[in-house]
Amino acid sequence: MTGFVSIDRNEVTATVTLANPERMNALDTTMWRELEKAFVALSADDRLRCVILRGAGDRAFAAGADVAEFATVRSNRAQAAGYAGVTHPALQAIAHCIHPVVAQIHGACVGGGLEIASMCDMRICGESSRFGIPIKRLGLVVSYHELAGLIALVGSATALEILLEGRVFGAAEALAKGLVTRVVPDAEVADEVSAAVSHIVEGAPLVARWHKRFVRRLADQRPITDAEMNECYACFDTDDFRIGYEAFLEKRKATFTGR
Amino acid sequence: MTGFVSIDRNEVTATVTLANPERMNALDTTMWRELEKAFVALSADDRLRCVILRGAGDRAFAAGADVAEFATVRSNRAQAAGYAGVTHPALQAIAHCIHPVVAQIHGACVGGGLEIASMCDMRICGESSRFGIPIKRLGLVVSYHELAGLIALVGSATALEILLEGRVFGAAEALAKGLVTRVVPDAEVADEVSAAVSHIVEGAPLVARWHKRFVRRLADQRPITDAEMNECYACFDTDDFRIGYEAFLEKRKATFTGR
Amino acid sequence: MTGFVSIDRNEVTATVTLANPERMNALDTTMWRELEKAFVALSADDRLRCVILRGAGDRAFAAGADVAEFATVRSNRAQAAGYAGVTHPALQAIAHCIHPVVAQIHGACVGGGLEIASMCDMRICGESSRFGIPIKRLGLVVSYHELAGLIALVGSATALEILLEGRVFGAAEALAKGLVTRVVPDAEVADEVSAAVSHIVEGAPLVARWHKRFVRRLADQRPITDAEMNECYACFDTDDFRIGYEAFLEKRKATFTGR
Repeated sequence: MTGFVSIDRNEVTATVTLANPERMNALDTTMWRELEKAFVALSADDRLRCVILRGAGDRAFAAGADVAEFATVRSNRAQAAGYAGVTHPALQAIAHCIHPVVAQIHGACVGGGLEIASMCDMRICGESSRFGIPIKRLGLVVSYHELAGLIALVGSATALEILLEGRVFGAAEALAKGLVTRVVPDAEVADEVSAAVSHIVEGAPLVARWHKRFVRRLADQRPITDAEMNECYACFDTDDFRIGYEAFLEKRKATFTGR
Repeated sequence: MTGFVSIDRNEVTATVTLANPERMNALDTTMWRELEKAFVALSADDRLRCVILRGAGDRAFAAGADVAEFATVRSNRAQAAGYAGVTHPALQAIAHCIHPVVAQIHGACVGGGLEIASMCDMRICGESSRFGIPIKRLGLVVSYHELAGLIALVGSATALEILLEGRVFGAAEALAKGLVTRVVPDAEVADEVSAAVSHIVEGAPLVARWHKRFVRRLADQRPITDAEMNECYACFDTDDFRIGYEAFLEKRKATFTGR
Repeated sequence: MTGFVSIDRNEVTATVTLANPERMNALDTTMWRELEKAFVALSADDRLRCVILRGAGDRAFAAGADVAEFATVRSNRAQAAGYAGVTHPALQAIAHCIHPVVAQIHGACVGGGLEIASMCDMRICGESSRFGIPIKRLGLVVSYHELAGLIALVGSATALEILLEGRVFGAAEALAKGLVTRVVPDAEVADEVSAAVSHIVEGAPLVARWHKRFVRRLADQRPITDAEMNECYACFDTDDFRIGYEAFLEKRKATFTGR
């Protein structure tokens, strides 16, 4: 039995599940490829308003990359470059998915699993979740791309602390470090994710996409062009602005169309 | 009755007040223009050492932009660009004011109000203050400039969380997010602001201005030039360095002149 | 008696001590020069795996630069530029030391002492430690380089708060601000540092060096080149990766060689 990535599609949301039950949802190359495909496909579907990413079961979000297969697919420098050619596009597909992505974290979220979670837009976890990137034990480094995602969340000093000590730590420390958005009792993780997703999908979908794109864009160092600045005013010509504005004046909740 | 912006000038400090009592101090275009003028004028007065920015009364710092007038001044893309031509200079006037600016926050500080507060150098609020940018309900986006101010305070992940969920949240959460500098009981906000302002105005005024300018400059991505590096040593030729150094050696408090 | 910097060398670690007992370990120019030399020498020794930096005794990490000598070495703009030519290389020698550097903080860590600590990779302090940069009392500014180190730890808003108010504050506030990695009871600082150092030296030494270098590199704004990206795969051709991978498969702890 090998691992797989499944998509459960609802009306305006989709849930992507990392499944490799015997290996704490560790991702082998097949799963990394399926993860990329899943997010590329969901990103192309503009009826969606939010994507949830989780691990199968409640023991792990993902325990990292599947180290067992490293002997054949990541055992030297040349292979490692090829392997990164599979994992990086998967991480980028999450970051560049047009929809907000919420990570629903039960149990272990370590190594490559934490890198995947750090590409999501929000991270909600249970009190017993565990985090860390203990790759100093393996003699491995994270690449610049993976590191940049981690630094964006916790800053450079904390990112380096996580890598140098290589400790696996609990949810309270992850929250204090800025690694997760919110910690709730284990039994309430799914409900808390549902509440966050409800907040997100009630808003104007184009606004959520613009905000995700604007925030990611500002992480890039190139100056914002006039054309990009101008895009900030495009929302005023959308149907949803008219719908939202009317609802605001009438003090009722708006029902947006995504146009 | 429309809103207005008032300036209360003391010896070395000034208080700028956003006043639109019937609308929770929401800012109409007149107020945005007056806000810009106020900070341009105060920035030109080098007898000042610190500026306080607050809302009239204790129900709100500012509830945002005055949405009621959007129908006439911000109802389509072209108008929105013109509207930004009024609000952006106001926000920039606070950021570029040569003096330290302390936001004194009572009650609601949401939407444009939070953007104004985020341009200040310190933010002190009461325990019952409320924060958020719930514009996803209106079908509106924040522009790159406004977003950059928010990201500078809370980081990109938290900025996106605030925009995607659009929740209005309390002072404790605002503090944990890094959105405010300090939270005190509601009745102590004015005293805490006075204490912070006292600390600021006791220091050498030129030093405060240099530090504000240096910190803002480092937010820009252009490399620091040799001439700029050299400016870091200019303080050693000021009267205030001689005054401060002498006081230090004599173990007494210095009385600075701002020269 | 003047101050001095000593090095205590063990098998894979070294402890650098700032010693100026009568002046709370304040650094005079001799000490700044010795500090630079110490870190340049230790950085060249690749048998090392971690460096600890501390103050002599338990009253202070360092109380800053030795202000007493300013009258002769830092009394005007030209002298100040020369003085920076001594202090900046010392700060850079810590930042660029190839080994992880852990600051062991007892007591006062203020002014230049805090700038030195902020160049280290981790900062562990006792509950009674005190922090701050009260140079507004002296009429002095921090330079862009020093400021950048502080902003990397606490962000621009908190850095400016520290400089504008010029308060000296406790360990709990320092932790909340992100200024220190960890706070423990005073009597446990040395043990906590030992534990952190143990975690670090157990890992593959080359991995620690790469991670430190990658994190520092990402603080720079120039884009990562293809050659730099490629260096991320070099670890897969090291002895230590083979050692670490084998140990992982056999579920035992690896003994790394640093090659």
